[in-house]
Amino acid sequence: MSSNDTNPVHELHPEECWEFLRTHEFGRLGYHLADEVHIVPINYAVKDDRLYFLTAEGSKLLGVTMNADVAFEVDEVVDEHATSVVVRGRARHLEGSAAWIIDQLPLRPWVDTEKYIVVEIRADEVTGRRFDLHRPWLHARVDTA
Amino acid sequence: MSSNDTNPVHELHPEECWEFLRTHEFGRLGYHLADEVHIVPINYAVKDDRLYFLTAEGSKLLGVTMNADVAFEVDEVVDEHATSVVVRGRARHLEGSAAWIIDQLPLRPWVDTEKYIVVEIRADEVTGRRFDLHRPWLHARVDTA
Repeated sequence: MSSNDTNPVHELHPEECWEFLRTHEFGRLGYHLADEVHIVPINYAVKDDRLYFLTAEGSKLLGVTMNADVAFEVDEVVDEHATSVVVRGRARHLEGSAAWIIDQLPLRPWVDTEKYIVVEIRADEVTGRRFDLHRPWLHARVDTA
Repeated sequence: MSSNDTNPVHELHPEECWEFLRTHEFGRLGYHLADEVHIVPINYAVKDDRLYFLTAEGSKLLGVTMNADVAFEVDEVVDEHATSVVVRGRARHLEGSAAWIIDQLPLRPWVDTEKYIVVEIRADEVTGRRFDLHRPWLHARVDTA
């Protein structure tokens, strides 16, 4: 048996990454704002291997307008496993009829604020990892014998 | 009543942000790698208003060595509320005796891989928001009468 069998970190196939992205709707956008890196939680939808989210005027929009380079991360911790998928790509503000795509998306904003600007992320790279967790403190046992 | 009473986005006080950071241990680091933004999930600990995590040689370490500017985000969704706290600051690799601080930290790596490099994040800015969620699809009701 190779030592890989005990490696607690497993790379996901790109198709597994997309399936994970499609079956979730909450992630975090990392973007440049001038020379700073910023992160913000966002809910999103996937269509044809692109990600979409809604936003209002603000630093996110300013950031991706000034520098389209973004990262988007979605993760999940369930029992003994954590999964994290990261999309690296380019964001752009969809204007005019391009923004109509929003009508075809299963995009359900979680927070009831006015957000009417559609941003699309085209993926240049999608990577995902599944981690076997080692958290013995969750399994502390009390003997009652 | 002002319109703020119905605003679903609530800013957290810095002390609330730190309390949230101290009572969680899993977040996401946003960092520069050359001219790209990257995000990676990380588990961390807090001591004296600084964040600490362990890593191995790799792109995270290379990134923060080349450009110390980072963002770190921790979030939680519980029932009708989501909370997100973001630290913006500067990361540095602790070497020599400075790295001994790790012995005083409640840092519990979740994944059993070799990580012996201690990174500290000094916060320049901590912001937090709590969102009232609006997810009617979670409350679909089936009448059985």
